[in-house]
Amino acid sequence: MFRIGFAGSHLTPEHIRGLEDLHRRCAGDIVLMTTLAGSGHPGGSLSSLHALLTVYANVRHDPARPLDADRDRVFVSHGHISPGTYSVLGAYGYFDREEALLGFRRFGSPFGGHVEIGVPGVEWNTGNLGQGLSAGVGAALAGQLHGRDFRTIVCMGDGEQQKGQISEARRTAVKYSLDRLVAIVDYNGLQIGGRTSDVMPQDIAAGWRADGWNVWEVDGHDWSALYKALRRAYLGETPEPGRPTAIIARTVMGHGIPFIENDAAYHGSTLTSDQARRALQGLGVPDALDELQSRRKALPKGEMRHSFPEAPLPAIEVGAPVVYPPEKDGKAAYTDNRSAYGRAMADLARLNNAGGARRIVAVSCDLEGSVKLSDFRRVDPEAFIEAGIQEHNAATMAGRLSREGFSAFVSTFGVFAVTEVFNQQRLNDYNATNVKVVATHCGLDVGEDGPTHQCIDYIGLLTSTFGFEVFLPADPNQTDRIVRAIAGRPGNQFVGMGRSKMPLVTREDGSPFYDGAYRFLPGKADRLREGGAAAILACGPIVGEALAAREILAREGIQVEVWNHASVKPLDAEAVRAAARTGLVLTAEDHHVDTGLGSHVSNLVAEEGLPCRVVRAGVSGFCGSGKPSELYAAMGLDAEGLARRLRSALGA
Amino acid sequence: MFRIGFAGSHLTPEHIRGLEDLHRRCAGDIVLMTTLAGSGHPGGSLSSLHALLTVYANVRHDPARPLDADRDRVFVSHGHISPGTYSVLGAYGYFDREEALLGFRRFGSPFGGHVEIGVPGVEWNTGNLGQGLSAGVGAALAGQLHGRDFRTIVCMGDGEQQKGQISEARRTAVKYSLDRLVAIVDYNGLQIGGRTSDVMPQDIAAGWRADGWNVWEVDGHDWSALYKALRRAYLGETPEPGRPTAIIARTVMGHGIPFIENDAAYHGSTLTSDQARRALQGLGVPDALDELQSRRKALPKGEMRHSFPEAPLPAIEVGAPVVYPPEKDGKAAYTDNRSAYGRAMADLARLNNAGGARRIVAVSCDLEGSVKLSDFRRVDPEAFIEAGIQEHNAATMAGRLSREGFSAFVSTFGVFAVTEVFNQQRLNDYNATNVKVVATHCGLDVGEDGPTHQCIDYIGLLTSTFGFEVFLPADPNQTDRIVRAIAGRPGNQFVGMGRSKMPLVTREDGSPFYDGAYRFLPGKADRLREGGAAAILACGPIVGEALAAREILAREGIQVEVWNHASVKPLDAEAVRAAARTGLVLTAEDHHVDTGLGSHVSNLVAEEGLPCRVVRAGVSGFCGSGKPSELYAAMGLDAEGLARRLRSALGA
Repeated sequence: MFRIGFAGSHLTPEHIRGLEDLHRRCAGDIVLMTTLAGSGHPGGSLSSLHALLTVYANVRHDPARPLDADRDRVFVSHGHISPGTYSVLGAYGYFDREEALLGFRRFGSPFGGHVEIGVPGVEWNTGNLGQGLSAGVGAALAGQLHGRDFRTIVCMGDGEQQKGQISEARRTAVKYSLDRLVAIVDYNGLQIGGRTSDVMPQDIAAGWRADGWNVWEVDGHDWSALYKALRRAYLGETPEPGRPTAIIARTVMGHGIPFIENDAAYHGSTLTSDQARRALQGLGVPDALDELQSRRKALPKGEMRHSFPEAPLPAIEVGAPVVYPPEKDGKAAYTDNRSAYGRAMADLARLNNAGGARRIVAVSCDLEGSVKLSDFRRVDPEAFIEAGIQEHNAATMAGRLSREGFSAFVSTFGVFAVTEVFNQQRLNDYNATNVKVVATHCGLDVGEDGPTHQCIDYIGLLTSTFGFEVFLPADPNQTDRIVRAIAGRPGNQFVGMGRSKMPLVTREDGSPFYDGAYRFLPGKADRLREGGAAAILACGPIVGEALAAREILAREGIQVEVWNHASVKPLDAEAVRAAARTGLVLTAEDHHVDTGLGSHVSNLVAEEGLPCRVVRAGVSGFCGSGKPSELYAAMGLDAEGLARRLRSALGA
Repeated sequence: MFRIGFAGSHLTPEHIRGLEDLHRRCAGDIVLMTTLAGSGHPGGSLSSLHALLTVYANVRHDPARPLDADRDRVFVSHGHISPGTYSVLGAYGYFDREEALLGFRRFGSPFGGHVEIGVPGVEWNTGNLGQGLSAGVGAALAGQLHGRDFRTIVCMGDGEQQKGQISEARRTAVKYSLDRLVAIVDYNGLQIGGRTSDVMPQDIAAGWRADGWNVWEVDGHDWSALYKALRRAYLGETPEPGRPTAIIARTVMGHGIPFIENDAAYHGSTLTSDQARRALQGLGVPDALDELQSRRKALPKGEMRHSFPEAPLPAIEVGAPVVYPPEKDGKAAYTDNRSAYGRAMADLARLNNAGGARRIVAVSCDLEGSVKLSDFRRVDPEAFIEAGIQEHNAATMAGRLSREGFSAFVSTFGVFAVTEVFNQQRLNDYNATNVKVVATHCGLDVGEDGPTHQCIDYIGLLTSTFGFEVFLPADPNQTDRIVRAIAGRPGNQFVGMGRSKMPLVTREDGSPFYDGAYRFLPGKADRLREGGAAAILACGPIVGEALAAREILAREGIQVEVWNHASVKPLDAEAVRAAARTGLVLTAEDHHVDTGLGSHVSNLVAEEGLPCRVVRAGVSGFCGSGKPSELYAAMGLDAEGLARRLRSALGA
């Protein structure tokens, strides 16, 4: 393994010979990989190759221990340069390079079209541009919080500099003085549509400077210049110490293969076999094309394969449940779920972040008070990360924090936690993160702030991913238990709640339904009330309305069951089957009527052909500003509206 | 109506007296409005008030004709300063100011918590920060394309400067030389979480400069300074003519009410009645609080109300359909839907954008070639807008273009057209736009680019809005007809297609099913084949697999119907009922199995208690890189997989 390790202030001729040799072999592998696969991105792989090799020849990494806690983290944000990345990781022995040559873009192989963490040495699945720096910020911040001195290097493309999320990540890096973070931009001046200066004129260096980074511009094919810049950035020898550094490397797309250089067509097109042979000859590397071609063809048919290394989740002390009493001073006690969330989070911080340990972090987006994280911040100020009104960066950063050994919470209003950043959450999910998205201010319950702020799509969105679980507590007691339960639960969870204070869910005798003995189980619904005429399946703030609707109907002699489906995904299928035995199910939720709990219940009922009708009550249109009670009434989601629906469906 | 109209290079003392008088009245109305409602945002309304009044006293606008084509467009991006906006529009006679005082944040009133276009004079519904400048860029670009000389002013907050989308909009404005665009940033230095310099340090002016704007920093409470800056920006008297201008106005939150000045608590908290009285007294305006309070209380209960002015959609010539033949030179002719899209778009440009008219525009995000818009560009280069890898800005800009009299298409891959920008599309929908989102590269059909690029959530997302229609053509003939149909159709549509070439959908006699006589009707499914044992309800690229599955089963003596549900929303309920009569429905789609066509079919089946089972075939996990055929086989979405499901469900 060829190593320099920042051994001196300048490269020696031997160093340069070593790098050149590696470069030739890797460039050859890039050509082979893409031509063999018949698709892929050779152009940017070749323009980024000098930078990639300079990084791997110098930073701290060990192919035998790709997940070592003290390794320097190398992110490749322009994930389409996977051939370049795989060629370098192969050369450094992370795997047998022939695996990549034969497996690239092949079904069942880990060597996907965009870099993926199934490949040893890859830190983060990228491909949708503009997210890699946010992941790098998460890693660098984690290093700071863990007290580890590793460096984080983020390799980026120039086209992706157009993505707004990058400026959010830059500012966050400066705010947190992430001086162990280095970005290297491959500035080859071309993107799919042609010259970046035609597609979208931009002064790239000025943007980084405006956000407060140290910026160096270098010739990205000059080994010595790259080395010196990276070394100084790595060692913190910068004009403004305490700040991160960006190296803008001027490069040539397709560098090293003269007949494709500077041709945007080779961003995403491969060389023909003849061209590949010519290229390999020019590089002076063996022409193994035909041999590899026939071996690739002879491989057995690919099989479905999806295995990523698990993110390390710390063991979490969940503490004792807080039981909120249903009455105070003889009157019904109202409190809001978000206050219960805040109290549980402060507990969790006390239990898990004391005495040198730090297992839980919480990210806010300029809404610390609204999402009730102030007590958490007071208990452990450093574990509270205020990311500003930069939700895209916050979501990805939280995802990465969760792959760095934290139980990572991120909290804001529903529209900012999911609706605005759905793709960031989707890619967190694809990165097998352990992120805990807790959204306050969901649904019409947001009230007067109006439809722009009323999040009524989170179930439709998150159940369109594969990993996210979706939990909607019905009251502060259940909120307390759910928050404690997810803190140490692997995988991604969403917890949604409204803004308002509400009465507690009680048993018929008036005692709290979610008492001290209650333990939240994902995939488990609760029958709150018995009844035979029909069943109301409710979640979140509508559970209270459902209980009140039951009272109305009971006075008319109609007995209906009431279920709380706090776990929308996974859904409690057994509970749905039990409710279906009544012959009439009314789903009731503060969510879009077509894509929420009701649609998942309908999926099951239709799939199993259960003999019951499903009436869905939900939000069926933009509703405007107003008090939650008025909005619920307008949508038929209040107790009277739900009772009316059931009466009508029962022909009563 | 107090007007200055940029009458001279300096304000006269009379001008200033007039402005001061207006300012006092409007500040009083801000206090009244928020205290009466008991919620709202007085702090930023007061810091922005000088700028708002300077704008309305000078720009071209006529309260009697709020939608006049030549009006200057004024956007309020920080929509929470609705009290400030309504107070100024009321003072200028857009409506009776008492309507706003009594209606603010009241259910059923147009005076929502964030500015809304139901209020005359408001150009765009905002509230989620960072989108207003993109809407302004859309308006300014529309002015340029229409050859109108109106100006566009975008008022913004300082907290929202943290949103990345703003930098995307800035670059687009510079690329298109939108020198009639002016941004005014209310830099009061506070956001919900405290000082902007604590929440997220940022050099706001440097950011605008880096992206190429003229930038002036002024005292935002100095009438003369604001006037001079706005006048010069408006008239193009800037250091760099041909570029847009940003005015960074240093202000004080809560300005004019000494006891709340510079207190972040008043970002989103209102004054008590006592405080309000004190404030009104200090401003020297009549204290109408009690009187208005009792009138507000006496108002009848609010009623559901949702009416926005329609966006003007031009009359579109759709031309003659292109019929793609099923065979060429005696062999099955394969072509891709996206090429049919490109050909239809070129036709539409020829028919609608010639001879001085320009009715159709198309926005691309660095994927002109992939989404097949090159012919469109050749026909009308100016109507083709290359927005770069800046999808958030592109989505909002396209939405606004559609409210400026264009049939506005926006095309990119599915993950960038919907998944990445869902909230922007949601707010387009809330703005009652006429945007036509045509996404190529949807589903597993994207193949080797892998899961980051395989969009399998667009139905789950877009059916979580209220307005978007979702259409999935099954072949190039249907693509041609759908594209022509939506070009002149009001409202928002999504058209999704895969990447691959495919055989045409034919009748049993081999002739094209979607022939020259076919006309696409939203909400209408097509029974492609008869059968009695079961029904396959398919859409998009899976229609071909469904037809092939039918052949497999027919050879085994099992006759199944095949339906093409190209219109997923609106869904053809009658067709679902007809299919349900077979007793077994198999839905089949290149989409998440829980939230696509299958879930909408299940909603209907469960709602009506139709006596049939619904088996859903779809994408049930991350699938990796590979050929579409391999991915389909792995998910059981190929012909053999679909046949297997039916066999098993039929117990055959």
